[in-house]
Amino acid sequence: MENFHIETWSGLSSGGITAVPGFKVAGIHCGIRKNKDKRDLALVLADKLCSAAAVYTTNKVKGAPIMLTIEHLKNGKARAFLCNSGNANTAAPGGLAAAVEMVNAAAKELNIKPSEIIVNSTGVIGFPLPVDAIVAGMPKLVKSLSRDNIPAAEAIMTTDTFAKSWAAQFELGGKTVTIGGIAKGSGMINPNMATMISFLATDCSISPEMLQKALKSSAAISYNQVSVDGDTSTNDMCAILASGTAKNPKIESEDEDYEKFLTALNVINLKLAKDIARDGEGATKLLICRVNGAASAEDAARLSKAVISSSLVKSAMFGADANWGRELCAMGYSGANFDPSRVDISFSSLVGDVQVCKQSTGVNFDETLAKNILSEKEITIDVGLSDGKYNAEAYGCDLTYDYVRINGDYRT
Amino acid sequence: MENFHIETWSGLSSGGITAVPGFKVAGIHCGIRKNKDKRDLALVLADKLCSAAAVYTTNKVKGAPIMLTIEHLKNGKARAFLCNSGNANTAAPGGLAAAVEMVNAAAKELNIKPSEIIVNSTGVIGFPLPVDAIVAGMPKLVKSLSRDNIPAAEAIMTTDTFAKSWAAQFELGGKTVTIGGIAKGSGMINPNMATMISFLATDCSISPEMLQKALKSSAAISYNQVSVDGDTSTNDMCAILASGTAKNPKIESEDEDYEKFLTALNVINLKLAKDIARDGEGATKLLICRVNGAASAEDAARLSKAVISSSLVKSAMFGADANWGRELCAMGYSGANFDPSRVDISFSSLVGDVQVCKQSTGVNFDETLAKNILSEKEITIDVGLSDGKYNAEAYGCDLTYDYVRINGDYRT
Repeated sequence: MENFHIETWSGLSSGGITAVPGFKVAGIHCGIRKNKDKRDLALVLADKLCSAAAVYTTNKVKGAPIMLTIEHLKNGKARAFLCNSGNANTAAPGGLAAAVEMVNAAAKELNIKPSEIIVNSTGVIGFPLPVDAIVAGMPKLVKSLSRDNIPAAEAIMTTDTFAKSWAAQFELGGKTVTIGGIAKGSGMINPNMATMISFLATDCSISPEMLQKALKSSAAISYNQVSVDGDTSTNDMCAILASGTAKNPKIESEDEDYEKFLTALNVINLKLAKDIARDGEGATKLLICRVNGAASAEDAARLSKAVISSSLVKSAMFGADANWGRELCAMGYSGANFDPSRVDISFSSLVGDVQVCKQSTGVNFDETLAKNILSEKEITIDVGLSDGKYNAEAYGCDLTYDYVRINGDYRT
Repeated sequence: MENFHIETWSGLSSGGITAVPGFKVAGIHCGIRKNKDKRDLALVLADKLCSAAAVYTTNKVKGAPIMLTIEHLKNGKARAFLCNSGNANTAAPGGLAAAVEMVNAAAKELNIKPSEIIVNSTGVIGFPLPVDAIVAGMPKLVKSLSRDNIPAAEAIMTTDTFAKSWAAQFELGGKTVTIGGIAKGSGMINPNMATMISFLATDCSISPEMLQKALKSSAAISYNQVSVDGDTSTNDMCAILASGTAKNPKIESEDEDYEKFLTALNVINLKLAKDIARDGEGATKLLICRVNGAASAEDAARLSKAVISSSLVKSAMFGADANWGRELCAMGYSGANFDPSRVDISFSSLVGDVQVCKQSTGVNFDETLAKNILSEKEITIDVGLSDGKYNAEAYGCDLTYDYVRINGDYRT
């Protein structure tokens, strides 16, 4: 991908889905969760039928709602996202029937076709979905549709600690186009050719084929480069609706407008992906591994992801310990092709940077400076190779006592 | 592999290498570690030149001693193991020269050829090996060679909490044959086609080719089925010396005697592998995942290993939480071939067993019984498939606060 600075990209805002004209959003507590203060049902509705695209988990065990959505999106068209938290509706008795029932209830209340709804569920695996609570809550959910995006971003959260919401605005053929999205993490996060849950909306005019192509390409460099714990969920989904109301010249091939759209989509997906990593279960730090000089794009992606996925690297980062042998070790077992005798490694953060390894050999460095750098909230691990011209980034978080605490007793 | 109960296998003892006639062992503190009570240099010596075999890490970044040992074992002959802890001699300035220097010092003191020595180092990566301390300690090390195996088992320990030592005795052609070994874990443990450090000795008469074949086959079902943290070390090694002094008819083909030898070797390697898992960094529990009814041996191995490698499964086991959806999820992303709609899952331990999932759907179970079962020190996760006749086991441990503590500040 082209190198651009997403943090300073001009059109960026935290507006999320409701930054996009023509989309309404709702999030309520319907009763799946015991805690009445925790929203557990989300809905996104477009004013009109949209081009739609999605990428899904590659886990062989797929949630019932994923299987239903795959059916619904065969024609590349949809109008709504519907999602509950608190129960994944996966490996549960009557799962597919429950997914159909919640979709039918929403379709009836919204007066649209069930096949126009993209549906998902997130939470614990293996328990029957309390579909009666969802059906009973549907009138309230639809009534609360508004131009505020946060209730829905909150309603899809599981162990997340903050709502994730970003929007980007740009020009296409003289028209203003907006893309916005919401996403959730924060455990069982190791998206593979797909993602955890991310719902995106745009008013861009674009064919379903080009939309699918852009989404797949963008997920590969954003969500698929995130790992919190190496566990690829059964319910990963990233889906997008494109209403076309921006009236830009319709994107139907990989032309210049497609590239502009893809760049904006990348900005949003990278912002959401980094938020997911930053808010990984128990995390205190965002880790970014940048690999430069790899022999291929695939090698660069694999090396960077291996580094941020290593439990040893993650624990060392928690302790602000510049134990760089663990980065080198993770690269070595990644399966990627590289020259193991010519690796440079540096750490950096807001307070400075320090080189710790040159040509695969330890160098003397200032341990106090290193400790200070690694004590910040956002750490970059720079890996320099001498194998070629390819770069990649991956996004992770530290491994902490709280990760163990959260996952030692998730169900109670 | 044939199903046999290693815990009740008749010839088993904890004698280790010195249960084998003709082998002497030493372990001392030479000064690599600051703590004078912690041994850091180990030596194993055979009375005569032996058939020798080894398997190594598949990490692209390999420790300098591994590269030297590969050279030394080209002729399939060796007489000694030499190993320090406290420093891995990997990605360190002058690493290969330091490995040569420590081997030369031992060869001189023992009056054998340097090429007859199998050498390794374990500990932190990236710092120069304090080879002067090793060379200075060599006379003391050689002088302390004895028929007690524990000092050496202790001298190769890093964050291990107990010495790992097992021996097996059996009959071949009317002769008594013994195999013994020592091993160390306990972090950066995810052996792949190789192992962490395990040194084995036998008096069996066997050709180097058959010895290598048996070792590779045995490592595949023992060490390679262990994971503590998914990190494949740079210095993994499992090596064996076979002196031939048992005078059994020499094993030179895959005959009945080879099978008997392999069974005994499997017993020792499985005992050591389970000890490594049990003593994983911060672990409070040994996890065993048994997969039955897989379509192929590879699928069975991959599925069982995915289950015990999952950070979510490991955290749930620490909390004695019967959150079986995590096992199903890990199987789904393992890459193995299986029917995801026909999976049975049960948990068992000393106090009982409980089925939690039948045909990929949750069943009602006694939560109190499940909690009691999962509160034991050794937990078996039984996975039943309907895909074929292949079985496998994998060995892991829980993920605990102590894992994070140990690895948050390993170097200090």
